[in-house]
Amino acid sequence: MSVKSDNPNVKSIKHMAFAVRDAKAALENYAKFLDVPAETALIDYPKSKNRVALFNLGGIEYQLCQSLEEGGRFDAWIRERGAEGLHHICYEVENIDQALDHAKEQGAELRICKACGVYGSHPHPEGYVAFLDNDAGGIEIEFMQVYTPEELEKYNQYKGI
Amino acid sequence: MSVKSDNPNVKSIKHMAFAVRDAKAALENYAKFLDVPAETALIDYPKSKNRVALFNLGGIEYQLCQSLEEGGRFDAWIRERGAEGLHHICYEVENIDQALDHAKEQGAELRICKACGVYGSHPHPEGYVAFLDNDAGGIEIEFMQVYTPEELEKYNQYKGI
Repeated sequence: MSVKSDNPNVKSIKHMAFAVRDAKAALENYAKFLDVPAETALIDYPKSKNRVALFNLGGIEYQLCQSLEEGGRFDAWIRERGAEGLHHICYEVENIDQALDHAKEQGAELRICKACGVYGSHPHPEGYVAFLDNDAGGIEIEFMQVYTPEELEKYNQYKGI
Repeated sequence: MSVKSDNPNVKSIKHMAFAVRDAKAALENYAKFLDVPAETALIDYPKSKNRVALFNLGGIEYQLCQSLEEGGRFDAWIRERGAEGLHHICYEVENIDQALDHAKEQGAELRICKACGVYGSHPHPEGYVAFLDNDAGGIEIEFMQVYTPEELEKYNQYKGI
């Protein structure tokens, strides 16, 4: 990618999560209008009670997220607005501690990771992640420092115990 | 970028346009939480009556767009939802005719470009652009086929007449 980032600690957008009413219907529109494979899988996550369609477009991972229960994370977001839309952006950073230190110095608050019950940087399957309790221009912010191959191996060994 | 696109005609996201109430305040949040340069310029466009803060983050151009008049494009969008958010994504495509043909075959309608009064692919400063009158997951869709150096020279000569 030739475009330089104004913040060099942000390497890329890791994923964008969209709140949708019906992941199958939203995927159909991406297939019709943006030629995403219609056979993209819809995956149900019983723990978080979400249905997600996941694909790559323009080098970015898209997650179309539907709450499977009323009042769920994405359902509540849509009800507040009466509209679907972009729920959060996950930024891949070179150094997550640096990203969080800067944000906190400027008044940011950390948000709890509901799945893990942790505030701030902590291990997820792909890397260390953290959530801010602040938005920018209406979009929630997640950071991820992707594991090195060694860190990934360590994480997988730990999860395998 | 190592992530492969599920639609190879989509090369990248050219820009994302966010509807914000106050471009200065939104930029301040991007500076605080995502370390975007606080001195990023705010540019007023008298013709479209918008104020825009433009920067690059994670290899993508961000446009924070504020309507300078009540009922303007971004103001109306925010009022409908009671919230700021992502208004549209502009996809850089290899071939804009192919992108539009596929979408139209699948039932897409073209939206007029208000600045130019044209439906479908037509020349803009950076390339050929077109708008769909359909959204996917709540996000409006723009396509751009960026000019080759020769096309850019031709466009600039034409504009210079």
